[in-house]
Amino acid sequence: MALTDGLEIPKQVLDAEIKSFYDSAPPLKNRDDVSEKLEAFVKKNSQPSGNGGARRVVCVTSGGTTVPLEQRCVRYIDNFSSGHRGAASTEYFLKAGYAVIFLYRRGTCQPYCRSLPDDPLLECLEILDESNIQVHQSHSQAVRSAITKTHAAVADGLLLKLPFTTIFEYLQMLQMVAFTIRSIGPHAMLYLAAAVSDFYVPWKSMAEHKIQSGSGPLDMRLVQVPKMLLVLRKEWAPMAFCISFKLETDSKILLEKADMALWKYKMHMVVANELLSRKEEVVVVTSNEKISVRRNKSLSVDDVESPLVELLVERHSAYVENSDL
Amino acid sequence: MALTDGLEIPKQVLDAEIKSFYDSAPPLKNRDDVSEKLEAFVKKNSQPSGNGGARRVVCVTSGGTTVPLEQRCVRYIDNFSSGHRGAASTEYFLKAGYAVIFLYRRGTCQPYCRSLPDDPLLECLEILDESNIQVHQSHSQAVRSAITKTHAAVADGLLLKLPFTTIFEYLQMLQMVAFTIRSIGPHAMLYLAAAVSDFYVPWKSMAEHKIQSGSGPLDMRLVQVPKMLLVLRKEWAPMAFCISFKLETDSKILLEKADMALWKYKMHMVVANELLSRKEEVVVVTSNEKISVRRNKSLSVDDVESPLVELLVERHSAYVENSDL
Repeated sequence: MALTDGLEIPKQVLDAEIKSFYDSAPPLKNRDDVSEKLEAFVKKNSQPSGNGGARRVVCVTSGGTTVPLEQRCVRYIDNFSSGHRGAASTEYFLKAGYAVIFLYRRGTCQPYCRSLPDDPLLECLEILDESNIQVHQSHSQAVRSAITKTHAAVADGLLLKLPFTTIFEYLQMLQMVAFTIRSIGPHAMLYLAAAVSDFYVPWKSMAEHKIQSGSGPLDMRLVQVPKMLLVLRKEWAPMAFCISFKLETDSKILLEKADMALWKYKMHMVVANELLSRKEEVVVVTSNEKISVRRNKSLSVDDVESPLVELLVERHSAYVENSDL
Repeated sequence: MALTDGLEIPKQVLDAEIKSFYDSAPPLKNRDDVSEKLEAFVKKNSQPSGNGGARRVVCVTSGGTTVPLEQRCVRYIDNFSSGHRGAASTEYFLKAGYAVIFLYRRGTCQPYCRSLPDDPLLECLEILDESNIQVHQSHSQAVRSAITKTHAAVADGLLLKLPFTTIFEYLQMLQMVAFTIRSIGPHAMLYLAAAVSDFYVPWKSMAEHKIQSGSGPLDMRLVQVPKMLLVLRKEWAPMAFCISFKLETDSKILLEKADMALWKYKMHMVVANELLSRKEEVVVVTSNEKISVRRNKSLSVDDVESPLVELLVERHSAYVENSDL
């Protein structure tokens, strides 16, 4: 019993899988820079500030990870995610007084930029003359708000943006975040909204060159990404308040899957969402509750992330108080 | 012999594969809108203008296509391409007097925007007060030039931007482009720089729901995307001047592959490029030449696309003249 540690696979097998994943991953290029920024960010926000105590810190992960199929990467498998959920949640966490580490997929939706068009520079701006640039009337409020709020959050040291692309980058950076926030114990939250690949091709067994399209079909074998969530909870940052997400397209298996994730990975809460209705409703699953959270259409701020973050902050507060006893 | 039409597979097999691909593809959502824009664009530019004859029209395809692995798409295979080549080439074609249909992957590099940072709105602009927005000094020239030149090209009816994401969207739109430019015969050019998937999962055999990560590895079988280039050349737009691209990571097989593409798909020219050196040098392969085209480092405009487009325009002119005889 002790060997399996609540999982279907023995702990030493999982540990070996994890070691093999990290050993084979191409090293993070800007590791020192990321590490320095993380340390400074958590240190600054964990000290009592002018108007009160230390801030809580949440790491919001957002967007999908890619799995390269070739070492000199031409083809890869991607997980679809606009990053809208993570960007919106970041705004509400900042509003609630949290400092946010925004670990996001390059090119996905950014906080405060959700209402901008795809290519805002070309679509929203007009050059009037040598010294004047004008924002189109229809986008004026959105552009001003995006720039002002983002710059303010970054300048105040409350928002740290860290981009990733591959599953290798993501899991290395997530580990660094977890190791760093361990120092603030229960005051840290991990809000794991990124769409993380379940399968990957181990770097060393990967084709070095582009896969050739000869004749006939292409058969591929991918191995499972080791279940990092359990080690994250148990070893990387055992005191952090942990929320993971479960997305399914089939509503029939969604809550069952969310329950299983809660139990298997010892999450504090799992947010269950179905692909088609995810902007209207999510169900927050805890060990003894299933709480439906819906978008409040009567309010002008009408994202489902608003009541969701409110609920999580409330539960996090209770968790912090219990830990302080 | 006649049956195979120069291909390894008989023509009726190819035709059946192509029919099966299009029949099974989810229909293009904005088909009527795209069709209308294309008709108007080609019509306008094929009429003699104030200062001379009709313009030549080039369709530049750019960026990679995706292959959905699930109908309600969560996972997909993607082909890496920044779209830099297509964006740069579009600028040089416009400069050479062409009208350009820019068929590009959503989110990839845009013409005149190559020197901007990833997130130009947030990184380049500053809100001064109610009525003034300022561009950071370091990006001032790039931002002004991007906005002014893009708006001018679009306003003058010389640049039509059409975005795609999946292989299904791409091949439906490419077919529409080809059918439309057929009316201008040899005055049209197809410059196929997009990184198109070689393999796909037929829509109807695709998993409807998200693939479950149970235990064990994931085995996938993908079938080859039918070789559309040959029907494009022979049937869709038989008079258009056609250039395709061959990208390999292994320089040893590159020229051989390019030669084969030239012969198999009856291209007028194939641009061979190797992943690592593609910004420095390409080799243009024709039926009797291999022309190395290199970036001219001594010029301030130092893209390899500048001499490349110059060469293609020259050859296209000769082709038009020969066709007019």
